[in-house]
Amino acid sequence: MIDLRNLKITIVGMGLMGGSLAGALRSCGCLLVGVDRDVETNEIAMARRLVDRATTDLADGVRGADMVILATPVRTILRLLDDIVPLIDHACVVMDLGSTKARVVAKMQSLPQHFQPLGGHPMCGRETSGIAAADALLYRGNAFVLTPLERTSGETLDLAHAMVKAIGAHPMLLDAERHDRVVAMTSHLPYLLACSLVAAAQMGAAVEDKVWNLAASGFRDTSRLAASNVEMMLDILLTNREAILRSLSIYRVQLNDLVALIEREDEDGLRRILNQCQQCRSGLAV
Amino acid sequence: MIDLRNLKITIVGMGLMGGSLAGALRSCGCLLVGVDRDVETNEIAMARRLVDRATTDLADGVRGADMVILATPVRTILRLLDDIVPLIDHACVVMDLGSTKARVVAKMQSLPQHFQPLGGHPMCGRETSGIAAADALLYRGNAFVLTPLERTSGETLDLAHAMVKAIGAHPMLLDAERHDRVVAMTSHLPYLLACSLVAAAQMGAAVEDKVWNLAASGFRDTSRLAASNVEMMLDILLTNREAILRSLSIYRVQLNDLVALIEREDEDGLRRILNQCQQCRSGLAV
Repeated sequence: MIDLRNLKITIVGMGLMGGSLAGALRSCGCLLVGVDRDVETNEIAMARRLVDRATTDLADGVRGADMVILATPVRTILRLLDDIVPLIDHACVVMDLGSTKARVVAKMQSLPQHFQPLGGHPMCGRETSGIAAADALLYRGNAFVLTPLERTSGETLDLAHAMVKAIGAHPMLLDAERHDRVVAMTSHLPYLLACSLVAAAQMGAAVEDKVWNLAASGFRDTSRLAASNVEMMLDILLTNREAILRSLSIYRVQLNDLVALIEREDEDGLRRILNQCQQCRSGLAV
Repeated sequence: MIDLRNLKITIVGMGLMGGSLAGALRSCGCLLVGVDRDVETNEIAMARRLVDRATTDLADGVRGADMVILATPVRTILRLLDDIVPLIDHACVVMDLGSTKARVVAKMQSLPQHFQPLGGHPMCGRETSGIAAADALLYRGNAFVLTPLERTSGETLDLAHAMVKAIGAHPMLLDAERHDRVVAMTSHLPYLLACSLVAAAQMGAAVEDKVWNLAASGFRDTSRLAASNVEMMLDILLTNREAILRSLSIYRVQLNDLVALIEREDEDGLRRILNQCQQCRSGLAV
């Protein structure tokens, strides 16, 4: 069993995910350093004792780190993978928490050999963002996808497993491309539906003044993801574009089928599809 | 202030909505009768003391009732509005809890003059159904739309207001047609998106076996409505078809816009729309 106690772990990006990770690792006894370009975020990280040290300086933050965890939007992760190369000349595990994995893993592949890279994606989140929303229990009970590279050593994988278990999550090994195809359907597509619903309701509200008064729990559940952090979602949409467009096209076929059944008042056809959806959704956790 | 204590109120349909209404009215001291064609439902209603009497016989249940509340799917409400005519020859308020109002109110218009009709739609629900899910607190804090007819007397409206307040809800007067246009957007459209999402994920799961493992809270929120009672939703789709098709068409324009922006990688265009949706959704209750 890997002992996290003697490690220096640097988390770059102390928002919701990074801040929550720091909080969750707090009891492991590792030395935790937080790096964020925002001074106020670092002050909060220190005030809440999420980290042992917080800095705006990447070079300072990663110095001597055994493990660097990049917890920013995906395109910032891609930039950081360039930025850390001249700053680290010792053996170092580099992991990320990015929402899409193919581009990150491809970039990690080009890191110098003293880096031990590994992709990661915890399957949890909130529609709030920033360190103010950080919660040490965010990861507990949730899946945490790990996307190793061919060059990722067994030791590095063991370390990642130990960290994932330490924060109460369940490690799940997955190929980066497969991960991206699956989350396009289960996460990115739902976000786009939620946004389109909100945009449609805004159009509706322009002619019917009671729309927001009657937006009850059903509307709120279905549209909740539209409140997600926009910069994070933009990076997702632009780094997982092909898989997302494929999911959208599958979705639009299903939606068009339902529209056609409603148009021709095909009660039996509707009942068959709606029952199938009802049974499928009822089988999932609430 | 209207006193509910001396009234005999009959609720027809003791499912989630009717059972919860009975539970919520329990402390008002009115005489409550439940009518349901399902014997077991009536047994549960009596065992949980939701009503003073439960019967499968509509004629028996509505005898001498001051107020009859129809709490079934919409097309059953339309049939019940025919069925009660030969059974009631005394002055009687007839109200319903149906999810669409135009067809119900049109039908109520043809009731004999000793009936005092009024449409109602509580803006709350659950994806569970049946009396087992009944909850006396279901209505508390939620809007309760009332759609009076021209023939609805001030006294009847006062009674409905008193009942709505007694169960902790907020009465909201609305024209039946307007109600239907608004809920097409805020409730029926979200249901269809949720179903299409589940259907799309089922297609995706046929080729990617990890789809259900990675369906995290975002997917679950967005798809939750797909677990709604199918017979209730079918009645909604078929009695509010035109308004629903109009909402779908507005929604599809918004979705197509997003797809086009993703296709041409228009980052600025995406950011503008997503920010607008983010701000709008963040302004709503969680």
